[in-house]
Amino acid sequence: MDDSKESAEDRLIARFFRPLATDPGAFDFIDDAAAITPPPGCDLVLKTDGVIAGVHFFPDDPPETIGRKALRMNLSDLAGKGARPLGFLMSIALPETIDAKWLAAFAAGLGEDAKAFGCPLLGGDTDHTPGLISVSIAAFGAVPHGKMVRRSTARTGDCVVVSGTIGDSTLGLRLRREPALAARWGLAEALAATLLQRYRVPEPRNALADAVLRYATASIDVSDGLAGDFAKLCRASHVAGEIDVARVPFSDAVRAALKADSALLETVLSGGDDYEIVLTLPPEKFAGFAAAAQSAGVPVTQIGSITAGEGARFMRDGKPLAFAQSSYSHF
Amino acid sequence: MDDSKESAEDRLIARFFRPLATDPGAFDFIDDAAAITPPPGCDLVLKTDGVIAGVHFFPDDPPETIGRKALRMNLSDLAGKGARPLGFLMSIALPETIDAKWLAAFAAGLGEDAKAFGCPLLGGDTDHTPGLISVSIAAFGAVPHGKMVRRSTARTGDCVVVSGTIGDSTLGLRLRREPALAARWGLAEALAATLLQRYRVPEPRNALADAVLRYATASIDVSDGLAGDFAKLCRASHVAGEIDVARVPFSDAVRAALKADSALLETVLSGGDDYEIVLTLPPEKFAGFAAAAQSAGVPVTQIGSITAGEGARFMRDGKPLAFAQSSYSHF
Repeated sequence: MDDSKESAEDRLIARFFRPLATDPGAFDFIDDAAAITPPPGCDLVLKTDGVIAGVHFFPDDPPETIGRKALRMNLSDLAGKGARPLGFLMSIALPETIDAKWLAAFAAGLGEDAKAFGCPLLGGDTDHTPGLISVSIAAFGAVPHGKMVRRSTARTGDCVVVSGTIGDSTLGLRLRREPALAARWGLAEALAATLLQRYRVPEPRNALADAVLRYATASIDVSDGLAGDFAKLCRASHVAGEIDVARVPFSDAVRAALKADSALLETVLSGGDDYEIVLTLPPEKFAGFAAAAQSAGVPVTQIGSITAGEGARFMRDGKPLAFAQSSYSHF
Repeated sequence: MDDSKESAEDRLIARFFRPLATDPGAFDFIDDAAAITPPPGCDLVLKTDGVIAGVHFFPDDPPETIGRKALRMNLSDLAGKGARPLGFLMSIALPETIDAKWLAAFAAGLGEDAKAFGCPLLGGDTDHTPGLISVSIAAFGAVPHGKMVRRSTARTGDCVVVSGTIGDSTLGLRLRREPALAARWGLAEALAATLLQRYRVPEPRNALADAVLRYATASIDVSDGLAGDFAKLCRASHVAGEIDVARVPFSDAVRAALKADSALLETVLSGGDDYEIVLTLPPEKFAGFAAAAQSAGVPVTQIGSITAGEGARFMRDGKPLAFAQSSYSHF
């Protein structure tokens, strides 16, 4: 037997993914498993999420965006929990049609993000599939023992804060499906492009994680829409919550689209893929949190409050909005 | 907005998978991430592997076997690295055709194994797919700091040891594809059934993990065939290895098949899905290891030796066997 023969799978991993094995615990991908030494006094925060062609991205999306989106979805959860990224595992299923050029671009995008977010690829699993491309990631982060920021710990009297802007990604998805909407919404090309980019490559708020850990009573990342995720936070915390629609932060592009078609408000508030963070904290701590967020370069906005009771409401002109569908569901 | 509305995805998770969230760090699956406290002084061993319908299992396989196989593939890697299981994350992609009965059986099988192996489900991701069923698992284990048993640390003079029996699963797969082979191999129904079962639900050697950690100089789990995985161990360790084919342990069923068709020898030695462990250790330590294995209820057999040089050989009647293909590859 010629044991110098490596399988095609080994060669693929060596060519495209070994350059990403920058952490010593990845053992250059020559072992069966990775090993990491957890930071002393810390818990490990564990999350898995993934993307499937035709469900979470378009099969002809630029390959360099696909791994980045999958990783960033998981990074966003770590940020929402106040955790610092440690690394990730990736399972990728590839149809026969995928070629070396696609893989090189995919791996390059992923590698850039792994470096930028300090979240190295530790190991993976590569298979051919008779189906569509799918990428599943399991990401690991660290928080001080017992301190993972839960969604179930909001308190009556807290204020509600959100990072960044809401609705860009869901309008980006609309534009991707129907490019003619850009003209209908009166969006210049550059604005339309920012929405599309936000859908393809979200901007998780890992820079805010330390401030979330230090100040938030409860927190959740906005992946299934602000309306749905805020409702989950209120339900898990057994509190009522109210968001003032007039205070929800929108980008110039979303404001322009809302001006052209006010019926988009529900889409914007309940659409998915924002990857912002919505959190609660006592009002007297907002100034400290806002200062920490500013140092981290992340805009944050106070948008509502937590009261006793149950139910999450979005108020406009003193009346609650009614939503047809509150949250993105994969089913 | 009626925030009491849970999405169909939330309901599916609550119905089928929440009962598996037995670890407090899973937070009953109501949070965005899980948290575990690593055992003091331990490293985390991380592994991801998965199964795709039509690639790793048959779409009409009993659903209770599918999650078990996916979990056990990962458990086997933890065992090979000397790690004790801590828990796992699961990503599952479901075609529209999957119904509640299928999911209930799938979850029941998975839950039994999670309990039996002390490896609780910590979190997951559930999506519908336009493609085929796939299940990807990321499993976590613990080893004392710096002690993960590598495949690259075999030493000249070591003996080579394997657990259990080799080749059952790959013949089980042959039978699954071509049931008439059972008669040709002269296998009674019960023996044929054990081969098929071994393919569907492998028996990872987690009971042996402590002994591997204590005694092995190097170790790898046999997932891609004994020939290929032993070659990987030799290559990574920069040593030569020799296995005496006459000493490789076979089950009654495999012995019967080999007697009927001696050409199956290559299949048996190089076929995948054994999920045994092949390891190296100094010959003077074999007695201690064998005693520990016996206490753990796992049969182990000395099958070869490590020498200086390079290359892995299987010797029969003093001559090396030539293999057409040394290792299972997904590509």
